[in-house]
Amino acid sequence: MLPARIGDLASFIGRWRKLIHNRIPEFPLRRRFWERVVDGPIGALVLAGRKDEAEAALKDIRDPTAFAGGSVSGRPEGRVTLVGAGPGDPDLLTIKALRSLQDADVIFYDELVSPEILDRARRDASRVPVGRRVGKPGIGQDAINKLMIEAAKSGQRAVRLKGGDPFVFGRGGEEVEALREAGVSYSVVPGITAGLGAAAQFEVPLTFRHEALRITFLTAHKARDAESVDWSTLTDERMTVVVYMGMTAAPSVRAGLLSAGRSPQTPVGVFARVTRPDAQAAVGTLDELPALVEQIDGGPAILIIGDVVAHSAPWRDSNLAQLVSYFQVAAE
Amino acid sequence: MLPARIGDLASFIGRWRKLIHNRIPEFPLRRRFWERVVDGPIGALVLAGRKDEAEAALKDIRDPTAFAGGSVSGRPEGRVTLVGAGPGDPDLLTIKALRSLQDADVIFYDELVSPEILDRARRDASRVPVGRRVGKPGIGQDAINKLMIEAAKSGQRAVRLKGGDPFVFGRGGEEVEALREAGVSYSVVPGITAGLGAAAQFEVPLTFRHEALRITFLTAHKARDAESVDWSTLTDERMTVVVYMGMTAAPSVRAGLLSAGRSPQTPVGVFARVTRPDAQAAVGTLDELPALVEQIDGGPAILIIGDVVAHSAPWRDSNLAQLVSYFQVAAE
Repeated sequence: MLPARIGDLASFIGRWRKLIHNRIPEFPLRRRFWERVVDGPIGALVLAGRKDEAEAALKDIRDPTAFAGGSVSGRPEGRVTLVGAGPGDPDLLTIKALRSLQDADVIFYDELVSPEILDRARRDASRVPVGRRVGKPGIGQDAINKLMIEAAKSGQRAVRLKGGDPFVFGRGGEEVEALREAGVSYSVVPGITAGLGAAAQFEVPLTFRHEALRITFLTAHKARDAESVDWSTLTDERMTVVVYMGMTAAPSVRAGLLSAGRSPQTPVGVFARVTRPDAQAAVGTLDELPALVEQIDGGPAILIIGDVVAHSAPWRDSNLAQLVSYFQVAAE
Repeated sequence: MLPARIGDLASFIGRWRKLIHNRIPEFPLRRRFWERVVDGPIGALVLAGRKDEAEAALKDIRDPTAFAGGSVSGRPEGRVTLVGAGPGDPDLLTIKALRSLQDADVIFYDELVSPEILDRARRDASRVPVGRRVGKPGIGQDAINKLMIEAAKSGQRAVRLKGGDPFVFGRGGEEVEALREAGVSYSVVPGITAGLGAAAQFEVPLTFRHEALRITFLTAHKARDAESVDWSTLTDERMTVVVYMGMTAAPSVRAGLLSAGRSPQTPVGVFARVTRPDAQAAVGTLDELPALVEQIDGGPAILIIGDVVAHSAPWRDSNLAQLVSYFQVAAE
């Protein structure tokens, strides 16, 4: 008999779905709402064939959001917020990210997140480093997931603080998946991804008039990542290419783009530790890319490849001829 | 004789460039510094061949930043800050953007920037709409540039407030170019671009494990933009494609991707007015894209095309089979 009743449950949900959707726009909370309904007395009524009573009980819920967020066990409700920390400058946190940090009981942070950002968190929040450090492995994704889930299930407000944006090369998707499977409440706060941080700081317009109409973000942590890229799809001269973690693989990035037919004279920039006090840039041509990387005192760094790099501040800055022409005007 | 002296000026600058670079990391301010040097008594000393005196005068500058920012005319110094307003939710402003808004005398804003964001500005700041509205042309880029330059030259702190990020389909590059040419101080504050806002809100991991390794951002405001795209470079199944302003051109986007060999079953999402209270999503397959757009009550909207859309909250939410399987577990 149970399968038929489950059909009843599904159609019961179906009748209320739209209304609840409108009253609880946030998906995680809405999912909690339905979990509570199904797991609680209302679900039991439907499964017992007492549909009218179930309908009445659902109608009686005055505040669906409170119903979804309220605790069943009496324990305070834990949750996880995936927060994009941005590229480095703590003032590039969003207001929402800052609030999450100031509300957190515990923060699981990548070691690339700068100390100045962690300083913005609540003074008494626990700070737990979990991510990879340069040259050292992290505790691993499974262990991170486990920590987050345990924290939330014990009633803590946990923040998973990730460099840049959680969904751009941040494995945020995997963490969301784990939290969903564990039935933990969560939400995602976007961040300024490092490529956009580099662009703003060094004045690289990623799109520009008829020169750059498209942008591609890719990662090339190791030479073998770069070798797996289908560079032939990156030949479009009007596409700006932004490479994350591309310092080590710079020779492969150069080789890939040249073999795909990009001009060796294509302007490129290496932008390291962007928006931090020790940010650094080296600009030149695609042909010179490995040498430019050599000029940089350590990562993390972003490579930007495309004609738009010629509009960047360091490109203009390094162009003495241009300075001299300015002086000529000034001296007239 | 002047050309030789200009060479002296260039080598004088050259000797001090690195030191000043370290003391004034911000390019616009540094450029101001050198403009002041060249335009002022120090430049005159170099051009007069009195290099030692020029060196001494430069050494005497205790605070290069103040020197660069100080006023020559005695009038307060105007400037322009290009600020990314993010996708809509005022809490997705960065702290830096918020400070710029609260410091501004005048704000030139795109009409797509939400009123709630303008509300965060100083109460007595002038608010000047300059951008395109749906169905109406704006005042035009030249007129916008002129307004910004005039405001700065009259000593005002101007903010140019742009939806999303200034350098992602925002014509920020053109504005920076105009400000440089006019010799106006400026800086750029990045913003959460709408694609990342959509991803965070609707839980679309733009990169995901082995499924999505790359992201391409493109714009397709009109069908003819879509027709100008070389879709053959977007065939990579492990590339997530994010299309800005793609509602009208949705049939062309569909046709382009299908003709390039993307599967009609590729998951797609249309995400409208993202991070605003009236945000809306429609998900389905590439084949259904134009019909999905029909379900949306007006833009602006972001299209996301790629397997990762199947991980999104609306995709899961609309999947009743999945709900039923959850109920089966819950009912056991």
